[in-house]
Amino acid sequence: MDPYPKPLRDLISQLKRLPGVGEKTATRLALFILGDRDNLAGDLSRSLETVRDSIRLCPVCFNLTDMPKCSICQDPSRDPSIVCVVEEPSDALALESAHAYKGLYHVLHGLISPMNGVGPQDIRLPELMERLSKTQVSEVIVATNPSVEGEGTFHYIAKLIEERNYPVRVSRIPEAIRLTLASALRYRRNVKDR
Amino acid sequence: MDPYPKPLRDLISQLKRLPGVGEKTATRLALFILGDRDNLAGDLSRSLETVRDSIRLCPVCFNLTDMPKCSICQDPSRDPSIVCVVEEPSDALALESAHAYKGLYHVLHGLISPMNGVGPQDIRLPELMERLSKTQVSEVIVATNPSVEGEGTFHYIAKLIEERNYPVRVSRIPEAIRLTLASALRYRRNVKDR
Repeated sequence: MDPYPKPLRDLISQLKRLPGVGEKTATRLALFILGDRDNLAGDLSRSLETVRDSIRLCPVCFNLTDMPKCSICQDPSRDPSIVCVVEEPSDALALESAHAYKGLYHVLHGLISPMNGVGPQDIRLPELMERLSKTQVSEVIVATNPSVEGEGTFHYIAKLIEERNYPVRVSRIPEAIRLTLASALRYRRNVKDR
Repeated sequence: MDPYPKPLRDLISQLKRLPGVGEKTATRLALFILGDRDNLAGDLSRSLETVRDSIRLCPVCFNLTDMPKCSICQDPSRDPSIVCVVEEPSDALALESAHAYKGLYHVLHGLISPMNGVGPQDIRLPELMERLSKTQVSEVIVATNPSVEGEGTFHYIAKLIEERNYPVRVSRIPEAIRLTLASALRYRRNVKDR
């Protein structure tokens, strides 16, 4: 007989869906939540509901937002002529925390990966091209990671932009300094410079 | 300006209340939850609500349960004459997973700790003494950990039982084998044997 009450067992199963959380950690977390006297269970539950119900993707840059348009796209002090292309919302958030970049973003929500059956249509690439065709963007900085997929996606974007003869400069952030964006933005290089 | 939408920032704050979860892990977990397409946020939220609303302490042994009495106390195949005293519900669950112990439990929800201002009245010790005075228990196995508090709590329990002249044998599980209860129960020793 399972000594765990069913609701506790269920909570452990749900916690195990989190990355890096196995049976042991999930059990420890579940028991901690249960033992917490400051209503962690209730607060966390409410917080999860709110996030699920209110967070959407910005229709312009596909970053996370709880407003009709994200705070960055809405900010009149940002330079709309520069767009930094990132893989995930977390990448945009990491770059923002460096307080160095003043342009806008475009979140792909993935990378082109033929090995995994992910094509250009499966990420927010068509939306990027449409955005470039409709708005005054003069520079696209591709800040995808230096994996095969990250490099491949960068080259694909550069090729598309070149083919369409958009007056857009495409640059790439070198990985070594990708995470320290303050430096990274200083060192960005034009695709055609190479 | 905070690039995180407020509901996301709130979720990160709640996740940081979990043990071993700092800003970085909380952010990673929150973004994972948001990105999950199988409604992890909703499932986890519901699971937390259910746990909060349904899990109570068993009025007999103070273990966790979603029933009026816990499944162990309700089980007619368990030996009610043996009571294993543990610090937390997680200890009882760990011992249960060894499938070796067939008696009942008593969960203290803490240990006597004068340094931290925790006295015998602050844990479920009065309830243990009342239980011993009212039911036919012939053996109490104290399975608290071997810390100063664990040993102190063991000696306090042994002293109380001796003072009241209850016909109850008190034994201690040695820590080295505490976690392998199958062996531990074989090697338990009577307090008076020492």
